[in-house]
Amino acid sequence: MPPFSFTLDAECPETLARAGTITTPHGTILTPIFMPVGTQATVKTLSPEELHEAGTTIILSNTYHLMLRPGSKLIADFGGLHSFMHWDGPILTDSGGFQVFSLGHLRKLCEEGVTFKSHLDGSLHMLTPESVMQIEAELGADIILPLDICAAYPCSAADAREAMERTHRWAERALIARELHRSDQVLFGIVQGAFEPELRQQSARFIGNLPFPGLSIGGLSVGEPKAQMWELLHYVTSELPREKPRHLLGIGSPEDFVIGVDFGMDMFDCALPTRVARHGGLFTHSGRVNIKSARFRSERGPIEEGCDCYTCRNYSAAYVHHLARSEEQLYYRLGSIHNVRFMLCLSSEVRAAILAGTFPAFRDHFLANYTPASEKVREEQREKWKAARAREP
Amino acid sequence: MPPFSFTLDAECPETLARAGTITTPHGTILTPIFMPVGTQATVKTLSPEELHEAGTTIILSNTYHLMLRPGSKLIADFGGLHSFMHWDGPILTDSGGFQVFSLGHLRKLCEEGVTFKSHLDGSLHMLTPESVMQIEAELGADIILPLDICAAYPCSAADAREAMERTHRWAERALIARELHRSDQVLFGIVQGAFEPELRQQSARFIGNLPFPGLSIGGLSVGEPKAQMWELLHYVTSELPREKPRHLLGIGSPEDFVIGVDFGMDMFDCALPTRVARHGGLFTHSGRVNIKSARFRSERGPIEEGCDCYTCRNYSAAYVHHLARSEEQLYYRLGSIHNVRFMLCLSSEVRAAILAGTFPAFRDHFLANYTPASEKVREEQREKWKAARAREP
Repeated sequence: MPPFSFTLDAECPETLARAGTITTPHGTILTPIFMPVGTQATVKTLSPEELHEAGTTIILSNTYHLMLRPGSKLIADFGGLHSFMHWDGPILTDSGGFQVFSLGHLRKLCEEGVTFKSHLDGSLHMLTPESVMQIEAELGADIILPLDICAAYPCSAADAREAMERTHRWAERALIARELHRSDQVLFGIVQGAFEPELRQQSARFIGNLPFPGLSIGGLSVGEPKAQMWELLHYVTSELPREKPRHLLGIGSPEDFVIGVDFGMDMFDCALPTRVARHGGLFTHSGRVNIKSARFRSERGPIEEGCDCYTCRNYSAAYVHHLARSEEQLYYRLGSIHNVRFMLCLSSEVRAAILAGTFPAFRDHFLANYTPASEKVREEQREKWKAARAREP
Repeated sequence: MPPFSFTLDAECPETLARAGTITTPHGTILTPIFMPVGTQATVKTLSPEELHEAGTTIILSNTYHLMLRPGSKLIADFGGLHSFMHWDGPILTDSGGFQVFSLGHLRKLCEEGVTFKSHLDGSLHMLTPESVMQIEAELGADIILPLDICAAYPCSAADAREAMERTHRWAERALIARELHRSDQVLFGIVQGAFEPELRQQSARFIGNLPFPGLSIGGLSVGEPKAQMWELLHYVTSELPREKPRHLLGIGSPEDFVIGVDFGMDMFDCALPTRVARHGGLFTHSGRVNIKSARFRSERGPIEEGCDCYTCRNYSAAYVHHLARSEEQLYYRLGSIHNVRFMLCLSSEVRAAILAGTFPAFRDHFLANYTPASEKVREEQREKWKAARAREP
């Protein structure tokens, strides 16, 4: 099994975009890369074979969900997540921090760690930087993340600083704790700092200088305007070490993927492509379409002409429309396959453009053609997020 | 494309069991055979490739559902059901009669045909023996069925006779009407007669003597006790021509499949294997198990040792249990694959036993080991059926 490594294959001279190669014990990942999210040890609706066929080279799974059900010890007994879920490629597990702050109830935060009630059965759990290292060792992913604090949006500067400083102390504790566990996993650091440019820079420098072989940027896309997110990311990237891979947590949509690459990011994970697919939203190079809309009722062609995904190779848009309108389970799968393939083709196209030195033109062409989800839809998503946060103490 | 044919490969000397070979324009079917049900132009949760891999050689689809959505004309525009749903094997379409009587609202029956309101949008539709032939020609299945009247259980002898006699007149009209359409489809006759032995015999003789190349037995398993069903079937089989394939509509479970073969049936269709799978009920040779039960939580082996289905080859029962408890869509697929494969392995095993002259021993061994769903569960299903019928005029 090769150890973890990251090499830069090319850098765009005009933007911060880079192309790289990551090796892990379970396989090689060419960056920039989109990572489908397999929250409960399954990327919703898809089999591992379908993920491979769609070009997936790494998936993300969720420590928070798996520790609650079926439990990390049970997964360890089955030889870890790879063997439990029948996925032989690389896996990244998050730390559970984000879900504790978005899903857990009656959260109680102290220097030691965070106590919360399970969203499933109300049972009480405590996570500490040390226990998270143990849980993630049991899950056995190739890349693991330390416990962090994801500040809410909006957030006062004082709260932002407190959350960041604690996240930094927890990062140091995680680095020590992980030495007790498996040497075949690598621990990425998480940059926080909420919505304060100065804190974001400070966090990037602090975490960037600790002996983490890779860096995840957390706490973004939690309800703030997109322009603000990109501005903050700009402050972060400028402070990050060049030689470490950069993972933008919880992003993205097709347009955010392209912009994120422009801002120097290498790895992206998001449930959005599979989630919007299940609601009828399918990606094309001209934007997101709603397959349930009447215009697809008798469409003989595929969802997008030229797409090489299983769905587009074998089914008319009219049939996919029929399944979606009939709420047939095969629809959720066919839609998810299409969107995951779209994100992985986009990853390849972006990488090829960086290698060819044509990324700026690619970016401009893609963004000029791609109509993103309307601001109204984004605003609804933001309100949902706020409402979810408001239900918590 | 070979035309339709049926040849008997072997007959059991002690029971009515037979093994046969059916040819159709889309492929060969070895009988006895289980046919998965693809109500809305999809066998719920499964792709056509998965159906093939599970050993499926013919599927059944529903005229009633497809005429309402997406419409038979649209399917005809797409080259028929095979091409629309990307299934290249044989298809049998039912006539819609059964669904009109179980799902349609405000049903109005006259000699001409039956008028009903769609369960989807309340729109008014009329089916006649002639229009059903046209719709099924548009759908383009290999085997089609004529409009029939499925009597309710219980049912007076007078009502049973009236329904049967009208079904017979409609059968003759269907035979004439189908001459206007495609010659590559074959029309099976449907035997009715409700719960009257004498009517069942009469119907078997009448329909059996009309120029139908195959025969479906309708109106059974609609709430009557199982013992009564088998008794009625016994009266039917004894009157059926030996040289035509016999299809037992809407049956069955594993145990009913084996008993149905014993009673001389060749073809079986039922949504039960995929429906119970979605609710956690998975078939093994010792009976139906509930994968959600705690005993599977840490089960390292597959659902059933020795099963060669995709699910059992690749996943522990513990993982399938985890997906089922988490209500993950991948569960519904993995469970359905297992049950469909179970039914098709059972079809092969039964056929091999008939060819080897050991069917009675196979039947006894299978039934002695297989614990069917409890009478309580069957009673609940019966009550649901009655309640559904009671909601209608």
